[in-house]
Amino acid sequence: MNERVLQHIDENLQNSIADLKRICALPSVAAKGEYMEETAEMVASMLESIGFETRVHPTSGVSVVTGELNVGATRTLLFYDHFDVQPAEPFDLWDSPPFESDIRDGRIFARGVADNKGDFISRIWAVKAFLENGLELPVNVKFVVEGEEEISSPNLPEFVKTNKDFLKADGGIWEFGGSDINGVQEAWLGLKGIVYVQLEIERLNTDSHSANACILPSAPYRLIWALNSLKDNEENILIEGFYDDVKPLIDIEKKAIAKIDMYEDKIKNHYGIDEFLLGLEGHELKERYYNGPTCNICGVWSGYQGVGSKTVLPAKAFAKLDFRLVEKMRPDDIINKLRRHLDSHGFTDIKIAWHEGYPAAKTPVDHPFVELVNKANKAVFGHDLVLQPTSPGSGPLYLFNEYVPMVSIGCGDYDSRAHAPNESIMIENYHNTIKRIAVLMHEMGSW
Amino acid sequence: MNERVLQHIDENLQNSIADLKRICALPSVAAKGEYMEETAEMVASMLESIGFETRVHPTSGVSVVTGELNVGATRTLLFYDHFDVQPAEPFDLWDSPPFESDIRDGRIFARGVADNKGDFISRIWAVKAFLENGLELPVNVKFVVEGEEEISSPNLPEFVKTNKDFLKADGGIWEFGGSDINGVQEAWLGLKGIVYVQLEIERLNTDSHSANACILPSAPYRLIWALNSLKDNEENILIEGFYDDVKPLIDIEKKAIAKIDMYEDKIKNHYGIDEFLLGLEGHELKERYYNGPTCNICGVWSGYQGVGSKTVLPAKAFAKLDFRLVEKMRPDDIINKLRRHLDSHGFTDIKIAWHEGYPAAKTPVDHPFVELVNKANKAVFGHDLVLQPTSPGSGPLYLFNEYVPMVSIGCGDYDSRAHAPNESIMIENYHNTIKRIAVLMHEMGSW
Repeated sequence: MNERVLQHIDENLQNSIADLKRICALPSVAAKGEYMEETAEMVASMLESIGFETRVHPTSGVSVVTGELNVGATRTLLFYDHFDVQPAEPFDLWDSPPFESDIRDGRIFARGVADNKGDFISRIWAVKAFLENGLELPVNVKFVVEGEEEISSPNLPEFVKTNKDFLKADGGIWEFGGSDINGVQEAWLGLKGIVYVQLEIERLNTDSHSANACILPSAPYRLIWALNSLKDNEENILIEGFYDDVKPLIDIEKKAIAKIDMYEDKIKNHYGIDEFLLGLEGHELKERYYNGPTCNICGVWSGYQGVGSKTVLPAKAFAKLDFRLVEKMRPDDIINKLRRHLDSHGFTDIKIAWHEGYPAAKTPVDHPFVELVNKANKAVFGHDLVLQPTSPGSGPLYLFNEYVPMVSIGCGDYDSRAHAPNESIMIENYHNTIKRIAVLMHEMGSW
Repeated sequence: MNERVLQHIDENLQNSIADLKRICALPSVAAKGEYMEETAEMVASMLESIGFETRVHPTSGVSVVTGELNVGATRTLLFYDHFDVQPAEPFDLWDSPPFESDIRDGRIFARGVADNKGDFISRIWAVKAFLENGLELPVNVKFVVEGEEEISSPNLPEFVKTNKDFLKADGGIWEFGGSDINGVQEAWLGLKGIVYVQLEIERLNTDSHSANACILPSAPYRLIWALNSLKDNEENILIEGFYDDVKPLIDIEKKAIAKIDMYEDKIKNHYGIDEFLLGLEGHELKERYYNGPTCNICGVWSGYQGVGSKTVLPAKAFAKLDFRLVEKMRPDDIINKLRRHLDSHGFTDIKIAWHEGYPAAKTPVDHPFVELVNKANKAVFGHDLVLQPTSPGSGPLYLFNEYVPMVSIGCGDYDSRAHAPNESIMIENYHNTIKRIAVLMHEMGSW
C-alpha cells in the first residue's frame, strides 16, 4: 500500500468534508421529490471532475447517475450509493438546521450525512487519493448512485433492466454501514425485502356529527378491525400464506450470528424498554432479528387530532404499513395475499391505494470478497468485521447480487440516528472509512 | 290570545332581526375563548333593557348570564340558551362573511344564527311583544344563557350547584330545534349523555427505524388491538358491563318513534351510502338511533402521515373516542369499566389521558308540558310537533330536568347547517318561532 495515498487522505480531510457539506446542503428528500435533479447533477459533476465517464439515466421517476473509470485493470469495484435522504421532520427536534451541516463534539450533523451522503463522498475521496497522487487506480471503478432509495427504489429495476452489464464487477460496496455500540466495525451482507402499502377507506361523502355513529359506518373503526385482522397481539401475521416462502437461516448464517453480540441491555436502555417484543432474548431474539418478517404500522390517521374534544364521525381513514420480507418471499405475492386477506375478511371497502417493494437478497457469509473486505478493514481499524448475514432493514440488493457480490460497510456508528433528528457521523470514522476503501482497492488489485 | 301580541311580532320583525344581526356580529367562538365577556354583556343588557333582573355568574371558565322577570304569575317558564358558537372555519366555504349577517332567498346567513342566537333573540322578542303592548306577562320568565355549550359546557355544573333554586320552573324551552326535511316542526325531548376520552400509549423513548419492528414493541399496533378489543365489527361494544344500565325504550317512546319518518333514503343519499350500519332499517334503525349507545373514534393518529413512504416504528399513538350514553348509563361508571377493560386485556400501558362527560336525560313523552308546547305549535304552524323522545346528540339537559321539564324547539330547519359553513335560518320560521313562544306563554298562564 502506497503511503502517499493514505497521507493524501489525511491531508485532504477538510476538503472532503467541504464536499460533504456541499451535498448535504441540498434537501434532496425523495418522499417530497425535492432537489432531485440538482443533486443528481452535483453527483455527476463530482464524478466527472475526477475523470469518470458519467451518465444520467432518465427513469420514470428520478434519474440514476452512473460513473465509470475503466483503467484496464483486471478487477472491477462497484459502489452503490444514493443521493436522496429521509424527510427531516420533525424539525424542532434538531439541535442545528438539518440542511446546514454543523460540526460539534467531533461529529458532523446533517440530514443524510450518515445515510448515505457521507459514504458516497468518502468513496470519491478514496479514488481521488490515488489519482491526485498521479498513481494508477489498482481497479476499475463504477458508481451507481440513485435518488429514490428512501422511497424503496421504485425505478431502479427499470435502470437495471437496460444496464445489466454495467453491474458486472468482481466486488461491490453497498451504501451503508459503520461501527456498533462498542466501536467495532460491522459488515452487512444482506438486506431484507420490503412491501410498503398505503391503505385507505372512505365510508361517507362527508364527516358527520358523532351523534350519528349509532347508525352510520365508521371508516376509522373499519380500518382498526382490518389492521387487527392482519396481526394478533402475539405478533403472528395472520395473512393467509404470509410465511409460506420464508427460507430458514442456513448453518453458516447461524454460526455467524452466534458470534454477534446484540448488546441487548444497551438497546433496551436506548429505547427505555424492559424487554424485547414477546420477551425474546438470546438466540431467539437473533433469529427474529435476522430472519423475521414484519407487519408494521408506519402511520395511521383519521379524524380530529387537535386540542380537546371534537365530536366527529370521520368520513375517511388511512394507514401506512411496511412488511419486511426475508429471503424467498416475493413482494407481488404478499400484495396479492394482503388483498385476498382483506377481501375474505369483508374489507373490500379498504383500498390498497398504492404499494411498492422488492425482495430480500444476501451475499454468502463465506464469499471470498467478504474476506477481502475484512482484510482491508483490519488493516485500517485493527479488528475483524462483525459479519451480519443480513440487515433487518431493506434495500434493492436483489437487483445487484446476481451480477456482483456486495458488502455493506460505511461511515456511520451507533449514534448516527439515520432517519431521525440530529443525524450525524463521527469525523474519525469518516476519515478511516476513506482509508478502508483505498486499502480495499489496493488489495483488490492483486486479488 | 291577545291579537295585539301577535301583531307586535309582525310589526317588529325587522327590529328583532336587527338585534339578531347585532349579536351574530360578535364572533363568540368558545373553542377560541374569543368575545366571551363582550357577548355575555350584550346578552345581559338585552335582558336588562326590558326589565329582567340579570346576573353575570363567574365560573372557572366563561360566565353564565341569568335573567329573571318575576311578575307574580302562577307559572314560570325557563329558557336555556347559549351565546357561544362553533368555529366558522373553513372561511372560504362561506358565501358571505360568517360574522356579517347576510339576507338572501328568505334566509339569514351567519355563524350562530341557527345555533342558537336566533332562538335566544326570538325568545326575547316574544317577551317584548307582551311588555311593549303594556300587557302583563302571563308567566314569570327566567333565562339561563351560558357561553360554553359548544365545548361541552364544562362549567355549567358549577353554576347549577349553587343555583338550583333558579332552575325551578313549570316548564322550560331548550336551546335548539326546528323543522324537518318536509317542513314539519320537531320537538326534542331528551339528549344522550356522552363520555369523551383521549387514549395515549408510548412504548419507546423515541421513534425507531421500522426495520426494528421485528424486535421492538409497536405503540400504534397496541392501540389498534386495544381499540379492536372495545368493539367488534358487528358493532357490539365489548367493555364488560357497558350495557348493564341501559334503559330500554318504554312503550310511549316506542309509540312516538313509530310515528316518526326518518327519511332513510334522503340520509343515505346525503352520505352516499347504500345502507345504514349493520344494514338496519325501519324500527330497528330507529331503536338504535334513539336508544343506541356508541363507541366511536373521533380521531386516531400515530407516526407518519405525509406523502409517500417513511419507514418508521412510531414511539407513540393516540386516539380520541366518544361514547354516547343512553338513559341510566353513568359517565364515571363507563370510565371505570373502560379502565378495567383495558387492564384486564393487558393494555395497562394505554393511558386514559383525560376524559369528560355527562349522563343522558329525557322529558317524558307524555308530560303535560309537552302537550302544552304542542298546542302552541299547532296554533302557529297548523300541525302537530314530531315528538323526538331524544336527540342522538348530547347536551347538559341532566342538569336541568330534575327541576323542570324541558322541551327543545327552535327556529332552525333541515338546511340550517349548524356547525358548518353557510349556517342559516328561514326568516319565516324565525318569525313564527317568536309567535309560538308568545302563544306558549299565553297558554301557560291559564294552565
